[in-house]
Amino acid sequence: MKKSVFYHAGCPVCVSAEHDIVQLIGTENVEIIHLGNDRNKIAEAENAGVKSVPALVTPNGNVLHINFGASMDDVKK
Amino acid sequence: MKKSVFYHAGCPVCVSAEHDIVQLIGTENVEIIHLGNDRNKIAEAENAGVKSVPALVTPNGNVLHINFGASMDDVKK
Repeated sequence: MKKSVFYHAGCPVCVSAEHDIVQLIGTENVEIIHLGNDRNKIAEAENAGVKSVPALVTPNGNVLHINFGASMDDVKK
Repeated sequence: MKKSVFYHAGCPVCVSAEHDIVQLIGTENVEIIHLGNDRNKIAEAENAGVKSVPALVTPNGNVLHINFGASMDDVKK
């Protein structure tokens, strides 16, 4: 199976959701990207349809916005 | 592993998220509850911390609100 991609920005909501998602779908099935540390991935996330973090982009390209940590505008600050 | 519980209310956002979640974590690992059809589960969902649907309650009791279909107030209508 193609990996899912979990985008986050290090906020407490993100970290909690990351822990849950990794536990549910398995660490080997998900790539974790920290947009605060890896700022050149912000455009990639937006192109994938990510409006806020944390968000999970599934292998078929759907975006699941999980809870609400920060908007993409906040991530860019 | 204890099952996760996915609460939804039949809206298009819910159905799309349900499909993704089942594919990601496996149909055998998640119980699906349709609050529109199973209205006596609404209180159970609220007690679990569900504020909107679709939402996934993980085996350790965390609530992941996924995208946004409807608030619990809307579900009660």
